[in-house]
Amino acid sequence: MLVSTTSSTMRGDANARVLGLLAGADPVLVDVRPAIEVVPGMTANMILTSGAPLGSGEYRGGQRNAIINAAIFEGLAGSATEAEAKLANGAIVVEPCHHHGCVGSVAGVYTASMPVFVVRNAAGGNLSFCNFYEGESRRRLNYGSYGDDVVEGLIRVRDILAPVVGEAVRAMGGVPLKPLMRRALNMGDELHSRNTAATALFARELFPALLDVATRRRQDVLKTIEVLSKSDYFFLRLSMAAAKGIADAGHGVSGSSIVTAMSYSSRDFSIRVSGLGDRWFRGPLPTVEAKFFEGFSAADIDWIGGESIILETVGFGGLSQAAAFPLQEYQGGSPQVMMRNNEAMYSITLGEHSDYKIPVFGFRGAPLGIDIFKVVETRLTPYCDVGLAGKAGGQIGAGLLRPPVECFENALKAYQEQYGGG
Amino acid sequence: MLVSTTSSTMRGDANARVLGLLAGADPVLVDVRPAIEVVPGMTANMILTSGAPLGSGEYRGGQRNAIINAAIFEGLAGSATEAEAKLANGAIVVEPCHHHGCVGSVAGVYTASMPVFVVRNAAGGNLSFCNFYEGESRRRLNYGSYGDDVVEGLIRVRDILAPVVGEAVRAMGGVPLKPLMRRALNMGDELHSRNTAATALFARELFPALLDVATRRRQDVLKTIEVLSKSDYFFLRLSMAAAKGIADAGHGVSGSSIVTAMSYSSRDFSIRVSGLGDRWFRGPLPTVEAKFFEGFSAADIDWIGGESIILETVGFGGLSQAAAFPLQEYQGGSPQVMMRNNEAMYSITLGEHSDYKIPVFGFRGAPLGIDIFKVVETRLTPYCDVGLAGKAGGQIGAGLLRPPVECFENALKAYQEQYGGG
Repeated sequence: MLVSTTSSTMRGDANARVLGLLAGADPVLVDVRPAIEVVPGMTANMILTSGAPLGSGEYRGGQRNAIINAAIFEGLAGSATEAEAKLANGAIVVEPCHHHGCVGSVAGVYTASMPVFVVRNAAGGNLSFCNFYEGESRRRLNYGSYGDDVVEGLIRVRDILAPVVGEAVRAMGGVPLKPLMRRALNMGDELHSRNTAATALFARELFPALLDVATRRRQDVLKTIEVLSKSDYFFLRLSMAAAKGIADAGHGVSGSSIVTAMSYSSRDFSIRVSGLGDRWFRGPLPTVEAKFFEGFSAADIDWIGGESIILETVGFGGLSQAAAFPLQEYQGGSPQVMMRNNEAMYSITLGEHSDYKIPVFGFRGAPLGIDIFKVVETRLTPYCDVGLAGKAGGQIGAGLLRPPVECFENALKAYQEQYGGG
Repeated sequence: MLVSTTSSTMRGDANARVLGLLAGADPVLVDVRPAIEVVPGMTANMILTSGAPLGSGEYRGGQRNAIINAAIFEGLAGSATEAEAKLANGAIVVEPCHHHGCVGSVAGVYTASMPVFVVRNAAGGNLSFCNFYEGESRRRLNYGSYGDDVVEGLIRVRDILAPVVGEAVRAMGGVPLKPLMRRALNMGDELHSRNTAATALFARELFPALLDVATRRRQDVLKTIEVLSKSDYFFLRLSMAAAKGIADAGHGVSGSSIVTAMSYSSRDFSIRVSGLGDRWFRGPLPTVEAKFFEGFSAADIDWIGGESIILETVGFGGLSQAAAFPLQEYQGGSPQVMMRNNEAMYSITLGEHSDYKIPVFGFRGAPLGIDIFKVVETRLTPYCDVGLAGKAGGQIGAGLLRPPVECFENALKAYQEQYGGG
């Protein structure tokens, strides 16, 4: 045991409370709005990106490109040179997504005009946000790519998809996400690298409302339906926003050793812990076991950030990978390995979901509540299903990411300093 | 070996040809029409039911009720007494679904006015048909129930669902079913007792066309969407029609020992074999390992017929049960047992599907081509996922049905008489 009996009891009580908050969270999609209108603290000259805070000069590689291109897309700068200058003099501000209730997919860049899903945890009232999936092209702003094609995708989101989906969602008075997510786990999704079923279920849910929207903007609705039919990752941003809402519901409970955020930038990996406030506990960049698209190899990987692993933080993705055997084609591995990996995650978690279940495990609840004590004891860090960006921009493959154990060790040290024991 | 080398080679060649025809079949939903307009040989006074042919006096229990109630629904008789009289004097004719390119779900009753899905095998040109799922109520005509509620469901199908879906399908120039079915197998469906994903994918596919239909009949489209959202078995009748089309594509190849139909009535179980023409090889009623809805037990089972096992005949349902772990809640069993059952099916089949694959088996093709020789040698009959009817009508549970080995023995005897050997 790493702590004394007394603090262990306090910790046990705190963690039990967090498990209840995580399992009981009830994410509902309530709106779709430009970030500037709804994201707390968002300003016109702000760009949100993945990872714990860095100086604006510290972002590098594809993440830096993504920030600069986001500035250009938003009209904050006319050129890369101008954007660099404005980043340096503070005319353009860069902040972590997590500091604004958001989570970033890969580089994760948000600008003021970008539409975001607004998700409300009906159980706790907290709001969370995620911007939209850009589309099926491997060239996407959040993967460090830029060009007319990328801009076209972003404009399609801003001017067509977001307004149409937003109108439908508001007319419906919100769309509860929990029922869709729990069903999707029975339909081959783990809600991170596979959102095929969730996207189809979400599309069907929206149909009646879209019929109405179509009476006013028929072509836009047809375009939206086309995207909902072709982009099996459309729901990813909803599962991310939901997961952020779930994680935040369990954050800030004094004495809890449960992880409530995992995140990486182009510089480092970091985690937050429920009982340790808003501090980030940093470690080196993660490792990955990857499957590459044709023509790419490990040498091409560029770590440009990522916060979609909020899904693993609350029990989805790699922690539910045995719900999603079709993933073997996308990110490698065999069903046997996926089951073994998934089983192993129960040894670093403190509970199980009561609603989200894994069929192949006889409907055992997904592992919930990653515990820094257990991770340090086992030296087993969470399996995370992620997409990989290439040095030349764009997606080059997918794989199983492993956070560095150092983050958990640093957090544990802080935990012991704050709460005693060990 | 049960036959000589020479006939074994002939058999091998014939079976290889049948496997190619089954695997290559390409079912496309091309229309929705009243049975009388499209089903070959259908007449106004005809009722189609499940199972090999019987005298109209031989149908019993719930199957007899279903036939009589179908006659009343169709207006062929004003009362049960009148229907009985007309069945006896031949004014109402009862024929097997299979003799008309159809397959019956449970009792499987078809009348002239009932709408059917029209499926065309684009690879072979053959047509197959299935009528519609009546809805989520346990009380359905095909389960032997009757009353105002049942009639209402049938009228909803006839006057709303079928015309709306038909209009959409025709406007689309047909809906290829293979892409939907292969995807559904990756999404927790085995396409027999679970069609949740296939129904969602089908609904999404139809939606752009439904937008158009809605400009003319908005309320009917809303009703259709509601059914497509709530009835996860809606696609079952499409998978049945598709399976019938696949099976027929492989039927009639001289020398083949592959099963091309399995069917049961309230009297007996029977099979057809590709190389043995249109003869039915009969055996006793099947056995079942069942999970019952609350309040019911094995004593309540009424065998009232069933031909949805056309799905197993061509590799779906029980032959792909490891694709559908969520079924454990519906029909019992554990993931381990489902995998073991599914594995066993490779020992009675001669090939594997090239397009329909089972994720948990590392995307191994579904077992294809049930061989009467292998079934008799192993005395292992196909596992079939079925719904169960109760003596008082209605569905009372679901389970794993096993055909009697006698059908296969009788077929094998006929095979040896026709082709020599043994």
